[in-house]
Amino acid sequence: MLSDVLLVSAPGKVILHGEHAVVHGKVALAVALNLRTFLQLQPHSSGKVSLNLPNIGIKRAWDVARLQLLDMSFLEQGDPTSPILEKLEKLKEVADFPEDCTDHERLAVLAFLYLYLCICRKQRWRAEDLELINKWAFQGEKVIHGNPSGVDNAVSTWGGALRYQQGKISSLKRPPALKILLINTKVPRSTKALVLNVRNRLLKFPKIVAPLLTSINAISLECERVLEEMATAVPAPEHYLALEELIDMNQHHLNALGVGHTSLDQLCQVTMAHGLHSKLTGAGGGGCGITLLRPDLTGPEVEAVKQALTGCGFDCWETSIGAPGVSVHTAASLDAPVWQALDGLCAGQWASSS
Amino acid sequence: MLSDVLLVSAPGKVILHGEHAVVHGKVALAVALNLRTFLQLQPHSSGKVSLNLPNIGIKRAWDVARLQLLDMSFLEQGDPTSPILEKLEKLKEVADFPEDCTDHERLAVLAFLYLYLCICRKQRWRAEDLELINKWAFQGEKVIHGNPSGVDNAVSTWGGALRYQQGKISSLKRPPALKILLINTKVPRSTKALVLNVRNRLLKFPKIVAPLLTSINAISLECERVLEEMATAVPAPEHYLALEELIDMNQHHLNALGVGHTSLDQLCQVTMAHGLHSKLTGAGGGGCGITLLRPDLTGPEVEAVKQALTGCGFDCWETSIGAPGVSVHTAASLDAPVWQALDGLCAGQWASSS
Repeated sequence: MLSDVLLVSAPGKVILHGEHAVVHGKVALAVALNLRTFLQLQPHSSGKVSLNLPNIGIKRAWDVARLQLLDMSFLEQGDPTSPILEKLEKLKEVADFPEDCTDHERLAVLAFLYLYLCICRKQRWRAEDLELINKWAFQGEKVIHGNPSGVDNAVSTWGGALRYQQGKISSLKRPPALKILLINTKVPRSTKALVLNVRNRLLKFPKIVAPLLTSINAISLECERVLEEMATAVPAPEHYLALEELIDMNQHHLNALGVGHTSLDQLCQVTMAHGLHSKLTGAGGGGCGITLLRPDLTGPEVEAVKQALTGCGFDCWETSIGAPGVSVHTAASLDAPVWQALDGLCAGQWASSS
Repeated sequence: MLSDVLLVSAPGKVILHGEHAVVHGKVALAVALNLRTFLQLQPHSSGKVSLNLPNIGIKRAWDVARLQLLDMSFLEQGDPTSPILEKLEKLKEVADFPEDCTDHERLAVLAFLYLYLCICRKQRWRAEDLELINKWAFQGEKVIHGNPSGVDNAVSTWGGALRYQQGKISSLKRPPALKILLINTKVPRSTKALVLNVRNRLLKFPKIVAPLLTSINAISLECERVLEEMATAVPAPEHYLALEELIDMNQHHLNALGVGHTSLDQLCQVTMAHGLHSKLTGAGGGGCGITLLRPDLTGPEVEAVKQALTGCGFDCWETSIGAPGVSVHTAASLDAPVWQALDGLCAGQWASSS
């Protein structure tokens, strides 16, 4: 079934250190997560472009002939760096744009349609191709987020681990693939409100909060140094101890910034009861946390932590960071569960996200 | 019964902000606690000097005639600033010094005996008298602690709130009397080991920990500013909010320094569940914590927190900070419970601590 099919994937990401501090000019470390989004492209004889995003319950189709009749010249096909907002408004007007789904879903569909209509397809990726993919991905980010930093698309394109500071992104050399748990507390939060809280606290207590941000910056830099040392030397228990100490200190710092949450305290306590160290990742105030899994842990030990976390009502994934970036797959290169999930999506669908 | 009796008291103290950071040259705020140690002096016809410290189970007596026969000239009576170690060794030799109690109790007895043999008694205290009391109290500290900072005796002598930095002690002007809970987690800890841990963390991660100490320093200074503002203006809810934010930030900072403990996390969570903010005070790693009681709290609300804390196995005292320093009392000026406790200690005893 995969003969005529192009199957690609790109990794998710987490912020390892530097969330919030990055807003104030400090360094952040973003790492590619080995939890991947798969995209399956398949030719079709129905005369329709079909979009299937099973994870968020979206199934759409557009008549190719109708799309071709529309005046899409405004899209300036092939240039992923031109301004986007005006083009999106025109696209919503001319395309059969669905109104009957929630805001986030509408934006996902809009991002797909925009990129589909603009992109020329290539199958093998050199550095220039990755640059181009990254630029298009950044356009997709703009459709959905408005004012993205560029880190998320960069880490999903190149994988591994990236250092970000004031718009400047650079890759870490050969970061080690560290096992982690990614935990969703399922406590909803507003990133915007949390970022504003930190800014207000900085304004209210500048002499307290400014050195705190300096300390977080130093945590990111020290983590970068340890990760690079692990890449050049044989990773030793001291490396993991240092990574754990950095995680603990940053978690306390984020609490001091006021972006903690009782659910995150609980997450940290539950994993600490199993000797494991955790921090929030991203905006905080609920949301997601990460737990470092040392290489000496046994399978049953990891299972016990996961059970304790799911017992708290959290969602929990065992995965690794420093994952490869955007990748083309053949059927043979896929893990069985991924292959089965993709095969299970019925034929006649054009794109899928799993 | 109090006619021939001199009754004095001095307050206990807590560190409000700056513990550990003070070891590294930063500011600390120490405040007098309205939990007082009472000393009752009473003439006696038994020809003995009797010492009764009921709280730590000590009851000793020395024959005055025998003490007078001993050559105590080495004590250089009346000078509380001369070196002390050699004199203590001689005192142990010549006095009937008890060997049958634990180290801390032996030191308490030794401190009493040393001060008793040295001090001239006065009943009304001017600034110079307080200076003298403070110097003698510092000598007592030296007997028991070896290398005291001088803050503890100073705050118990002058009361109120003191700022301490690198050996320099100054009083805050009219600090407000804030209600607090003092909570003993009853988790034993070694101050020395905790201080060493912080030093090691500073050496291991200088660029992370140094700005953290700077941030703690700024918390102490901001707290001092808020307390002085509360003394000059009418205390407002914003003042208490700021004090609470400072408490939270410092508690997270102390955790980041590695001097937290699960018992202290529990203490903070339990009080936070009642909307109250807490931090460890002193060395951390267990030991004691303080909780700020806002003036808007009702009696039943305070009772509920206290019950929740005692339910965790903690000891809990409702008291206030910014208490008066060393004081002479008349029977009429004493609270009924203190008076009853002192009266309950049988006659014929010379000194008591309650």
